[in-house]
Amino acid sequence: MNRAQLVDQIKAKQSFLCVGLDTDISKIPKHLLNTKNPILEFNKQIIDATKDYCVSYKLNIAFYECLGAKGWEILEDTLKYIPKDIFTISDAKRGDIGNTSKMYAKAFFENMDFDSVTVAPYMGEDSVSPFWEYDNKWVILLALTSNKGGDDFQRVEDANGPLYKQVIEKSAAWGRTDNLMYVVGATRPEMFKEIRVIAPDHFLLVPGVGAQGGTLADVCKYGLNNDIGLLINSSRGIIYAGNDEDFAKKAGEAAKKLQLDMETYVAQLS
Amino acid sequence: MNRAQLVDQIKAKQSFLCVGLDTDISKIPKHLLNTKNPILEFNKQIIDATKDYCVSYKLNIAFYECLGAKGWEILEDTLKYIPKDIFTISDAKRGDIGNTSKMYAKAFFENMDFDSVTVAPYMGEDSVSPFWEYDNKWVILLALTSNKGGDDFQRVEDANGPLYKQVIEKSAAWGRTDNLMYVVGATRPEMFKEIRVIAPDHFLLVPGVGAQGGTLADVCKYGLNNDIGLLINSSRGIIYAGNDEDFAKKAGEAAKKLQLDMETYVAQLS
Repeated sequence: MNRAQLVDQIKAKQSFLCVGLDTDISKIPKHLLNTKNPILEFNKQIIDATKDYCVSYKLNIAFYECLGAKGWEILEDTLKYIPKDIFTISDAKRGDIGNTSKMYAKAFFENMDFDSVTVAPYMGEDSVSPFWEYDNKWVILLALTSNKGGDDFQRVEDANGPLYKQVIEKSAAWGRTDNLMYVVGATRPEMFKEIRVIAPDHFLLVPGVGAQGGTLADVCKYGLNNDIGLLINSSRGIIYAGNDEDFAKKAGEAAKKLQLDMETYVAQLS
Repeated sequence: MNRAQLVDQIKAKQSFLCVGLDTDISKIPKHLLNTKNPILEFNKQIIDATKDYCVSYKLNIAFYECLGAKGWEILEDTLKYIPKDIFTISDAKRGDIGNTSKMYAKAFFENMDFDSVTVAPYMGEDSVSPFWEYDNKWVILLALTSNKGGDDFQRVEDANGPLYKQVIEKSAAWGRTDNLMYVVGATRPEMFKEIRVIAPDHFLLVPGVGAQGGTLADVCKYGLNNDIGLLINSSRGIIYAGNDEDFAKKAGEAAKKLQLDMETYVAQLS
């Protein structure tokens, strides 16, 4: 998917919501365990219930990988079930030397048809650039993460500024604003102001709204740009909003609630 | 596998060689393409030919993941074929927030029975520690990598030293010398001297000998400790040493050559 298509979706749906499919068999409603493929069934019902309110789905690869070969099939089948006009994210946090990143790119962009993959920046440019050998595919690079451990190394600072800013500034020269986004956690909304100085045009993928404590208003205050420029992810807050036979309805309501909060911001777009 | 068992193997085999199974279907001998499962067949023959000369196998997960569900099965079957007294590494470069790293740990340590996994440090402690919920399993944390992009961020330096050193010093307090190793590339042998000051006892996994240009003698000069403390990885230099019907024999010879070079160093152990 290219940038114009993504922005069109945001305008059409009045939403910049990303739903995270971190599907854990121990957390899905019990009645689904009697179906042939409980996780796929859960994902399909969640997608049906939320697809009108979101512009993106993020599949957390760990939750499928931990099921072995079968999990990989569920991942592929879930991806195929997502409507083609919705931006898909393989949340994989990959990154390795060039010839290996190339194989990861093949996994997510060729064998599967994800629009994007999350990548860890620690190994630098040649671990990131192989993902761009595919047209209209995006790298979403970790910059400032929302977890506690995000403070351990991401703020190490030399004369060029803290590490997370250096990651943004250097990588901005490797990619473009239509094939590169950054992960910036919602738990530090004040940071968006500084990040928008060095990356005014990039899209930012923002986890941490809801379960992890950040608020939509805080993130929008500093993070919006002329194309909205944000994908706000909610995983547990939506997919586990209910835990009974009406779980999908509850998920749809939770997604709709966030979408309604987003309408005002999209309406301000020129 | 615990540390004592690993050191016993090193002494018994007079080797600290790790063979990297980065198996690429486009690079394996043509005659194998007629077999039912060419990659698995290749891996089995390589393992048979090299297992007496190495103490570890490193499976580069990207090379299996890029084949989808089938690749995951080949990965599992290759792992099962490796003798139990050989230390196995899932070279996955994973790392995510706690509940997600927990799922990756389940994938590699519970569903499969790898001894260790490589982890990227960017997201800090809570992305690393879930891997230690399993006994006798190891994290091998990226510190100083051998690729060109390793220079992009790993040497960002504040008053506490360069990032790669901070990764070692901080993480040493999260784990122990019997469940934590570091990746340090062979292309910068002079760095081992400094690293041994802050991590005298840890094992180091060392890629970059051979194809990437580092030499065994240079690495040993500064990197050895009282338990050897090094696993020297060679992937392409061994598994693609031959490309004909005698490929396994050639791989065995390449592995044996490295093992013979290592004997002198092991003999010096007390």
